[in-house]
Amino acid sequence: MPYSYKQIISLPLREKLFHFMKNEKIYHVIFAEQFNRDVIDRLCRIADVLRKIAQTREGQDFLRSLLAHKSVMLYFTQPSTRTYLSFVRSCQYLGMNYANVRDPSISSFSKGESDIDGVLTFSNYFDLIIMRHHEGGFAERVAYLMNDSRLKKANIQVPVISGGAGPDEHPTQALLDMYTLCRSFIWRPKKVDGLHIGFMGDVARGRTVRSLSKLLTRFSNIKISYISPQELKIKEDLRKWLDRQRVDYYETDNLNELIKELDVVYVTRIQDEYDTGNESSDLDYSKFHLSIDDVQKMKEEAIIMHPLPRRQELDPNIDFDKRAKYWEQEVNGMWIRASLVAFIFNVDSNILDYYTLHHSH
Amino acid sequence: MPYSYKQIISLPLREKLFHFMKNEKIYHVIFAEQFNRDVIDRLCRIADVLRKIAQTREGQDFLRSLLAHKSVMLYFTQPSTRTYLSFVRSCQYLGMNYANVRDPSISSFSKGESDIDGVLTFSNYFDLIIMRHHEGGFAERVAYLMNDSRLKKANIQVPVISGGAGPDEHPTQALLDMYTLCRSFIWRPKKVDGLHIGFMGDVARGRTVRSLSKLLTRFSNIKISYISPQELKIKEDLRKWLDRQRVDYYETDNLNELIKELDVVYVTRIQDEYDTGNESSDLDYSKFHLSIDDVQKMKEEAIIMHPLPRRQELDPNIDFDKRAKYWEQEVNGMWIRASLVAFIFNVDSNILDYYTLHHSH
Amino acid sequence: MPYSYKQIISLPLREKLFHFMKNEKIYHVIFAEQFNRDVIDRLCRIADVLRKIAQTREGQDFLRSLLAHKSVMLYFTQPSTRTYLSFVRSCQYLGMNYANVRDPSISSFSKGESDIDGVLTFSNYFDLIIMRHHEGGFAERVAYLMNDSRLKKANIQVPVISGGAGPDEHPTQALLDMYTLCRSFIWRPKKVDGLHIGFMGDVARGRTVRSLSKLLTRFSNIKISYISPQELKIKEDLRKWLDRQRVDYYETDNLNELIKELDVVYVTRIQDEYDTGNESSDLDYSKFHLSIDDVQKMKEEAIIMHPLPRRQELDPNIDFDKRAKYWEQEVNGMWIRASLVAFIFNVDSNILDYYTLHHSH
Repeated sequence: MPYSYKQIISLPLREKLFHFMKNEKIYHVIFAEQFNRDVIDRLCRIADVLRKIAQTREGQDFLRSLLAHKSVMLYFTQPSTRTYLSFVRSCQYLGMNYANVRDPSISSFSKGESDIDGVLTFSNYFDLIIMRHHEGGFAERVAYLMNDSRLKKANIQVPVISGGAGPDEHPTQALLDMYTLCRSFIWRPKKVDGLHIGFMGDVARGRTVRSLSKLLTRFSNIKISYISPQELKIKEDLRKWLDRQRVDYYETDNLNELIKELDVVYVTRIQDEYDTGNESSDLDYSKFHLSIDDVQKMKEEAIIMHPLPRRQELDPNIDFDKRAKYWEQEVNGMWIRASLVAFIFNVDSNILDYYTLHHSH
Repeated sequence: MPYSYKQIISLPLREKLFHFMKNEKIYHVIFAEQFNRDVIDRLCRIADVLRKIAQTREGQDFLRSLLAHKSVMLYFTQPSTRTYLSFVRSCQYLGMNYANVRDPSISSFSKGESDIDGVLTFSNYFDLIIMRHHEGGFAERVAYLMNDSRLKKANIQVPVISGGAGPDEHPTQALLDMYTLCRSFIWRPKKVDGLHIGFMGDVARGRTVRSLSKLLTRFSNIKISYISPQELKIKEDLRKWLDRQRVDYYETDNLNELIKELDVVYVTRIQDEYDTGNESSDLDYSKFHLSIDDVQKMKEEAIIMHPLPRRQELDPNIDFDKRAKYWEQEVNGMWIRASLVAFIFNVDSNILDYYTLHHSH
Repeated sequence: MPYSYKQIISLPLREKLFHFMKNEKIYHVIFAEQFNRDVIDRLCRIADVLRKIAQTREGQDFLRSLLAHKSVMLYFTQPSTRTYLSFVRSCQYLGMNYANVRDPSISSFSKGESDIDGVLTFSNYFDLIIMRHHEGGFAERVAYLMNDSRLKKANIQVPVISGGAGPDEHPTQALLDMYTLCRSFIWRPKKVDGLHIGFMGDVARGRTVRSLSKLLTRFSNIKISYISPQELKIKEDLRKWLDRQRVDYYETDNLNELIKELDVVYVTRIQDEYDTGNESSDLDYSKFHLSIDDVQKMKEEAIIMHPLPRRQELDPNIDFDKRAKYWEQEVNGMWIRASLVAFIFNVDSNILDYYTLHHSH
């Protein structure tokens, strides 16, 4: 194969991360582990500023001028509403041109074109590829491909952002969850440090659980509880990561014993699209539904999160409880993604400068 | 259910209309009955002005600046060419950003998300939802949902425009038809008042027939004839409405006895997509086809309308008869929809002011 | 039929070409034969200038202002990646608004609308139609339709560009191939004149082979070799054309005897989507694969082209050989298409003027 990445792809994660950097800065976005505390803080800061600037027409005009010379391919071969639309809106706020491929049957893939050739074509026409692909590690492969020095030379190297990859990775979801925590606990002197987060549901296959757990290790004194059926406990590799990072975590199948202590109840849907047989349908998942009664037992200042979409595990009657933050999570996703795109194209300083000049007095 | 609208939805229409207003102005667009004579006149006036402004590049630049800070979700789960594309062009003329969901299988609905959650997501990301949904009353439900005071408080309340709902309602089609009548009969001293309109074809299930009939009651001395097979006569509720409004209407299955008197022949397609069995295929619909010979019998100043798409009921040889107005109807649809969107976002006065300043001397 | 073109469509090609002109200039783009040497030179020149202007933000801002008042319908009912996306990017560079119909099942065609009515609708809403249709001669028919004087009078006449029609025509692919030749051989005193081009593979059904062969006859002393299996040789009509134009061409099934002489190896995929039975699957196509070993035998200054997508006929290991030009072909396609659209809307002079003013000193 002319595009070799097989060796890199089997490296341990910490040796991989370097490959997603350019000029000592994040370039491709593939794993939540790429974001350290400084980057998280900066991205959250830019997101906060972006949404304030966007409140005026002049502000929006300014934002649309920032990346009017850049273009994006949104390549989503798996269903998506929130991730897709929030990226679209992000790019529109930043004035970017975009196109999408969502149905491979109307593209040349239907004539037997390889995925790699398709992606090289995208990089020929666009300045950024945002992608969700049915093949788990595909975005990672594309990132390595883009690093090929011959592409760099041919001037068709572009950054790649994963919009969710298989059951394992969803780095921008982890970012928006982190951003939601930062905004929700801004009143605490220690902010996110020292929180107790409870993930409830399919913690084995919920990629948001996995990605956010890892980001949380960037903060101090975090306590994590995983509340799930026996059959859907976290997997060995996450357990090892938590041990290595010396995170204080706990596993249970009983929300009740914990609910009064939790600062965050992060509910997740059963991810039966990853069933290999029919295993999920035999499970009694009802113990892992959050009800209005459960919410009554929560701390006054605790919050409820959910990556959405939901099914029965989260009662819509909870929606307007002040602790419910999942609809805000959606909006946060749009702003943190805009922040990330601005960061990758190095216009984040322009945004902060504009804000200093026009708002902060 | 946390979002309650069941009580409202069963109210008589006249008690409902209030719920689609905001600050004493139309906010959601769900029923043709929402448009009174003043609003129709204003929307037609804005549409006339819009198309004149758009004839120059400077004019187009001005229009695109009007709503460059606003965004639209086009959520169409049923096939559409004209309504969809004319709304797209309307929004492009006004400089709006937009995205669409036309294939629910590539969105989170395929993961079991409820329609309501989907729409709440749209309202989180966009400033306006334009929708056509396979479930008849869905746009109406969404409008009530958007009125929920808790959404208002959370600042995610947005207006909803129906782009056609089931067999019953298509308010913007009624508007464009009305606009076509106003433009076509501008030479008459009484304009639309006193016209005799003949609807021919599937008047039972043609939603445009139903919606336009209701709008026509805003005008004086209108006479309506419904020319249809026995099996596809107008339904009881429309008959009741017409009686209550004291409209002079007439039903027949014979175009010939009327054709010399009609000012408007409004032809419609058989709506067999609403067949419950195979009923339409047994019908002899050929009596309700408009031919070149029929057109010869029409008044010189009469007009022919059709909501399109057509099949055999309207001979393409008629297309270039000066009485044929259906291709103009399409274009009128684009301008009246742009007018409506401008009206809802309260930039209609800006448009009239610009016109006064640049054109009318 | 009210729209008559049956007589025209059966005329010999040279008598047809006149019908695609307006004011002595190309208006519709249907056949490669429409481009004479002067037009090819001009389009290549504009494309060269466009890509230079686009290297600066100011340049891009200028380009986006050129056609911001124009709109495009991209109507592609057959799969496409490169042609579709490069047209999208072209239109974005020129600031045009666009919409697409790629899935007829979500448009009114699913309600029994005729293709012609659909296209008339597009011309009502848009200023240009770019189309690829499953019915071979459809774009040609639409072009004649648009010439109907009654449409002209109704002000809904718009230009049509074919984005590939059936197995026969792909005029903009021929243009981008031509542009690639011009750029690749700029170092030769005689440029493209006198080159020896070898087309390898399914030369019977590769529409790019056919279209480019015809364009090449605009140049002097061209030599063409067709290297293909017996079953997939060029067809009688192309052979006749070549004879009439007195082109020096040669047919063989053996690349080896020629490879050292060729200036261009133009590889094509087997077009089995046009199989009527299963004929392609019985063929031994492996003799018509280009390998790294083959490339070693080529002249140092020769080039390798391929219209893409590829399958096995072109080894990805060749991609970064300096002779491989197929990824550049893709990019060239974007610029030559932008050039063509600018040309059709008569803003090509503005582009050259801008360049003279800002770059050439």
